[in-house]
Amino acid sequence: MVNIHGKIAEQLNRSGIFLTKTEIECLEITDFGLNDFYNAGLIIHTYINTERCCAKELILLANQVCPEHVHPSSAALEGKEETFRCRFGRVSVFIEGNKTTQPCVELPADITNYTVFHEVVLNKGEQLTLKPNSKHWFKAHGEGAIVSEFSTTSNDDTDVFTNQKINRASRLSL
Amino acid sequence: MVNIHGKIAEQLNRSGIFLTKTEIECLEITDFGLNDFYNAGLIIHTYINTERCCAKELILLANQVCPEHVHPSSAALEGKEETFRCRFGRVSVFIEGNKTTQPCVELPADITNYTVFHEVVLNKGEQLTLKPNSKHWFKAHGEGAIVSEFSTTSNDDTDVFTNQKINRASRLSL
Repeated sequence: MVNIHGKIAEQLNRSGIFLTKTEIECLEITDFGLNDFYNAGLIIHTYINTERCCAKELILLANQVCPEHVHPSSAALEGKEETFRCRFGRVSVFIEGNKTTQPCVELPADITNYTVFHEVVLNKGEQLTLKPNSKHWFKAHGEGAIVSEFSTTSNDDTDVFTNQKINRASRLSL
Repeated sequence: MVNIHGKIAEQLNRSGIFLTKTEIECLEITDFGLNDFYNAGLIIHTYINTERCCAKELILLANQVCPEHVHPSSAALEGKEETFRCRFGRVSVFIEGNKTTQPCVELPADITNYTVFHEVVLNKGEQLTLKPNSKHWFKAHGEGAIVSEFSTTSNDDTDVFTNQKINRASRLSL
């Protein structure tokens, strides 16, 4: 097993985003239960998550994908609204809309679990806001990416992934 | 007039927070209508502000104060909840509670416009969450400070400042 914490610390250093030692030790590292972390995985630091709002850093290693999902609204609760701000590297966010015929990144191998293909490339300093009920997935480019997420309450339990095999609560055991 | 944009750009550079050239040109620079910018002033970049959530960078020059205010709840709307995360420098946030007898910063000269004196010092990587209806003010230490603010909707019009002379909408003309 490559030293993931070392990779993360290096990427954070290069990004200028400072997390404390304890915060780095407590990062949420998920492989979505797919056991293919370097292809489908996400590293998360949550600054704050209350009943009203939330802020996170999303760290993606080189070419890593956060699989397609949606934050649905229900009768009881409006779905999550989120803004992605690219802080380091480059990330392609795929959303509903016209299919991008020549995307900047290679599409995932398990393409049957993906249904939206309109690519928005976020370079450092660029951002995108998604309303609830918008299907999306994203993939880091070759340098990896760090993306700040500003949002309403985050309740991972209600996320709906296109790939039914995904277990969002899965954590990588290092 | 000292080159404020130069000072801001230098502070951002040192902090590792990247804003685009256009974002820097469009920063909100307020003196709160007090015409004493280097003592009472704030420089703001708003990443996103929707009806549900908001994220900003707050830039304070050396020893600059954001005067005491509150984000009140009303019958129509719950007040603003906000989290301050110190990214650069050091900032003292003063909140309700036991008066700090020997604060780390010098108190403002117009002390009659301040009523809460419990000091919470935020170093780089430290943060504090304030619920609505909490009186607060903050002051940068000698190096200045950059503070990320993660919050619910920001509606400056409803802020209530202790100093009745304050005009929150005032902009510094450079």
